[in-house]
Amino acid sequence: MVMDRSWLLTDWESGLYVESLSLSSAELGIPDSRVEKRCLRGGLSDGVDLIEVAAGELSCTVLPTRGMGLWRASYGDVPLGWQSPVRGPVHPAFVNQAARGGMGWLRGFDEWMARCGLESHGAPEEDGDTPLSLHGHIANLPAQRVAVAADPSAGTVTITGTVHETALFHPKLLLETAVTLGLDSSRITIRDKVTNLGDVPTEMELLYHTNYGLPFLGEGSRFLIPFEELTPYHERSAEGLDTYDVYEPPTPGFVEQVYLFSPAARSGDTASLAAITNPQQSGAAVMRFDIRQLPHVAQWKSTGGASDGYVTGLEPGTSFPNPRSVEREAGRVVTLAVGASYDVTLMHEVAVGGEAVDAVAAEVAEIQSGAAGTVNSLP
Amino acid sequence: MVMDRSWLLTDWESGLYVESLSLSSAELGIPDSRVEKRCLRGGLSDGVDLIEVAAGELSCTVLPTRGMGLWRASYGDVPLGWQSPVRGPVHPAFVNQAARGGMGWLRGFDEWMARCGLESHGAPEEDGDTPLSLHGHIANLPAQRVAVAADPSAGTVTITGTVHETALFHPKLLLETAVTLGLDSSRITIRDKVTNLGDVPTEMELLYHTNYGLPFLGEGSRFLIPFEELTPYHERSAEGLDTYDVYEPPTPGFVEQVYLFSPAARSGDTASLAAITNPQQSGAAVMRFDIRQLPHVAQWKSTGGASDGYVTGLEPGTSFPNPRSVEREAGRVVTLAVGASYDVTLMHEVAVGGEAVDAVAAEVAEIQSGAAGTVNSLP
Amino acid sequence: MVMDRSWLLTDWESGLYVESLSLSSAELGIPDSRVEKRCLRGGLSDGVDLIEVAAGELSCTVLPTRGMGLWRASYGDVPLGWQSPVRGPVHPAFVNQAARGGMGWLRGFDEWMARCGLESHGAPEEDGDTPLSLHGHIANLPAQRVAVAADPSAGTVTITGTVHETALFHPKLLLETAVTLGLDSSRITIRDKVTNLGDVPTEMELLYHTNYGLPFLGEGSRFLIPFEELTPYHERSAEGLDTYDVYEPPTPGFVEQVYLFSPAARSGDTASLAAITNPQQSGAAVMRFDIRQLPHVAQWKSTGGASDGYVTGLEPGTSFPNPRSVEREAGRVVTLAVGASYDVTLMHEVAVGGEAVDAVAAEVAEIQSGAAGTVNSLP
Repeated sequence: MVMDRSWLLTDWESGLYVESLSLSSAELGIPDSRVEKRCLRGGLSDGVDLIEVAAGELSCTVLPTRGMGLWRASYGDVPLGWQSPVRGPVHPAFVNQAARGGMGWLRGFDEWMARCGLESHGAPEEDGDTPLSLHGHIANLPAQRVAVAADPSAGTVTITGTVHETALFHPKLLLETAVTLGLDSSRITIRDKVTNLGDVPTEMELLYHTNYGLPFLGEGSRFLIPFEELTPYHERSAEGLDTYDVYEPPTPGFVEQVYLFSPAARSGDTASLAAITNPQQSGAAVMRFDIRQLPHVAQWKSTGGASDGYVTGLEPGTSFPNPRSVEREAGRVVTLAVGASYDVTLMHEVAVGGEAVDAVAAEVAEIQSGAAGTVNSLP
Repeated sequence: MVMDRSWLLTDWESGLYVESLSLSSAELGIPDSRVEKRCLRGGLSDGVDLIEVAAGELSCTVLPTRGMGLWRASYGDVPLGWQSPVRGPVHPAFVNQAARGGMGWLRGFDEWMARCGLESHGAPEEDGDTPLSLHGHIANLPAQRVAVAADPSAGTVTITGTVHETALFHPKLLLETAVTLGLDSSRITIRDKVTNLGDVPTEMELLYHTNYGLPFLGEGSRFLIPFEELTPYHERSAEGLDTYDVYEPPTPGFVEQVYLFSPAARSGDTASLAAITNPQQSGAAVMRFDIRQLPHVAQWKSTGGASDGYVTGLEPGTSFPNPRSVEREAGRVVTLAVGASYDVTLMHEVAVGGEAVDAVAAEVAEIQSGAAGTVNSLP
Repeated sequence: MVMDRSWLLTDWESGLYVESLSLSSAELGIPDSRVEKRCLRGGLSDGVDLIEVAAGELSCTVLPTRGMGLWRASYGDVPLGWQSPVRGPVHPAFVNQAARGGMGWLRGFDEWMARCGLESHGAPEEDGDTPLSLHGHIANLPAQRVAVAADPSAGTVTITGTVHETALFHPKLLLETAVTLGLDSSRITIRDKVTNLGDVPTEMELLYHTNYGLPFLGEGSRFLIPFEELTPYHERSAEGLDTYDVYEPPTPGFVEQVYLFSPAARSGDTASLAAITNPQQSGAAVMRFDIRQLPHVAQWKSTGGASDGYVTGLEPGTSFPNPRSVEREAGRVVTLAVGASYDVTLMHEVAVGGEAVDAVAAEVAEIQSGAAGTVNSLP
């Protein structure tokens, strides 16, 4: 029998904090794996805790200081993620979310996958008496407990973290996340649980803002998703509806377009997916999720110039990234009962080679063949 | 002759900073005492300086990074303070006071005793052209000078700190505080001096937001204060006027009630007090103060669910926690002349045992017997 | 041949960060020089990187954490700069620029020379849909790359730094700065380059907020500048127009006055200057600049009480410190094409002795004799 191996890095209860740690394949008990934890110094990253984890061809970087977001990832020598104009990772001390009419979140935004939520996400608004800023707090809150665990028998390495988004007279929401990489797959699995720690029911919104740019995204990249319904976000998006699923090259001055999908699953099933292919159609980044957990997906096309942040977002969520009041009215905001949790399992996969990409496309097409595929031409 | 013993921990002038320090009873020269200074790492507390000081049965924790607030205290194994939904202490870098309509202060609020002020306290407002956020700056400003001093002959340990709340075109206010614990008493004495460092007179507000929750506060806990006048804060408070002095158990969804008191003293005297008893009436937390220094006391009942922050606040202040413009109009905002100081001496005592609690109640009753005790039924 | 000597202190790309470094005259290869880099701890300065550099009689302090601002300077034992009410240098984590109606910048303001910009500077406003706070971001952004270089053959020490003011959907502006001190002069040379890193043209504003107070500034100090045109900023400034160029002693309650100049150069030349003399006329602080680069100069008189921040500002800029929308309408906001840079060379000189001061005055008078010198009596 092989025992689990675990290392505690941060623990709010006991005051434990590990500044840096390197774990070798031998220490983890998993061939071809590696974990390295550091605390960055200097510039906008001063004080940011960062954990790099690699298993086989896949590696990614977790940011405990930024709500356990995934900063970067790569498969072999192919970087996933995007080139944000922001030189991060940015410590939340340098992000003033209330600034610029509630758009300050953008000053810290350079992650491959940033969570938006938990109280709210989407565009800033005054929701009743409550000013809400862009995409909520979770990406700028540090984790209170962080650990590494290896399971040699399963061949997996997992980074876990807990983030408290709580305050008096605010929602009391706890995020517990586990990011798992395994030796024998090209997959990162994210298991999140959001719990209402409070004594009254509370609303909750959660969206996985996953971003791809050059060189993975390029002219000819395709967006693949099986859907029941597709609606453009606004007039500007409606203009590009016919070509929502293909990408242009970097186009300075491009004004963003957003498409809102109800993702489809096979009859009797709840598993869905969305993917973005590279221009050569020789690789695809795939997200797999359960439509009971993430029933709404936004596709964000912000394909401006390379230096302005040429990027597309695949954004499965509990709701769409509209202002919360819009989502509430549409009945899409989750309410968590006292003590209740919301579970999400999300998989990032890398499909390598033309055949694998074709298989993803075939899978999407096959699910689509059983789905409505309604396209609304107006927002 | 016994010399004072002192240790400088932070000094802005000279650039001195002590990361950690442990002082034993022998080093302090005081039996049964202890001081420990640390800098917390990780999570929301990353970078927070914390000083634990204990003498006899009493211990408390001072937060230089949060305006020399008192984070926690305990008597023997009984914790004072409350269980905030916030997992702190929270570094001010994670508190955006301007957020959420000026309510961002709450994201850092988990102290046993937080000072509110110094430029203003109370609810956010636009006071003339000046937007003021909830409860002012002082709890989110770090101390520029921090020291420990022991006086073996008096048997006391004192933590001192200075906090500058200053900026061009803002009030220039200096807080100098000394927190003293003594071997032969169950008392923490706080001596504060607020000085106008500027060249023109300036307004000043100061309130001691002292908070009790489970297990000290519970169903049947009583609030004791001798008063000249009592006024409910708003309609919601007026509803509970008849039972302002008793506490309900944790009640999810409870909407806060606030009562405003003019505390009374014996004829010819200026000493007053307020207390909160435990449910068993076997213990009481007592605050003693001078009504010339702190002529206004707010009682805050926020007895929602245990996880939502079941809490009551005893809040003696230079004014009530209304918006500053309201307090100014009522003539309750202090103006400090150039170079002038405002002194406050405040004592936290723990009454242990039924007899001690009865003695506090009797003291309050006796003072009340000579006071008007006017109760205004409308806000 | 003498090689350059260089030391990298912070590098975002490689993750390099040097906590502290002392370089002696011998290590720098320059007689009578010194560099010391530290990271401050405790209070408002916690986490601030600071570099002191001295060559001959002149020394100054550079703040990588505050946008490469110049915190303090001195010539011999004469301090330049001013005594701000702020006890800094202040880490940006303690500065909430959005607070108090966009005036939060003042909570960190105590530099001798702070840059204002790069997206905007001047008074807060809502420029179209975009709320802009006082004086922009650059002074509260940390440098991503910092280095020291010595050139023994030239006899100079240079501190270089790069600061990124970038975000998605924001301007993408890069500041590269080099601060040079040389052995055989009483001069600090600042060479700045601001580059549009983005893929679309962008507006840019840059102003050098250089501040003098006691003891250098005092009653009888004079302001010297050759100008084509002078306009008071507002009615209050118009009141003092006749005596704009002389200073009163510290005057508690003094309300600020601002004068806007179009600086003049000799016919066929573009070199201009502005200076402030000490009360004894035995010393002057001189700024030299090129009117093609910095065609606008504001003089700020804020000569309140000594403890309120008795100060004057010499502020050459690419535009005046009006709200950006006002400057845009007047055609004074620079637009940078894609990839374009804006270069500024600025020299701070110290004139020592009555003769040197007279020479500065004569130089100003001589340039003025060939310039229009129009004085507008109304704002």
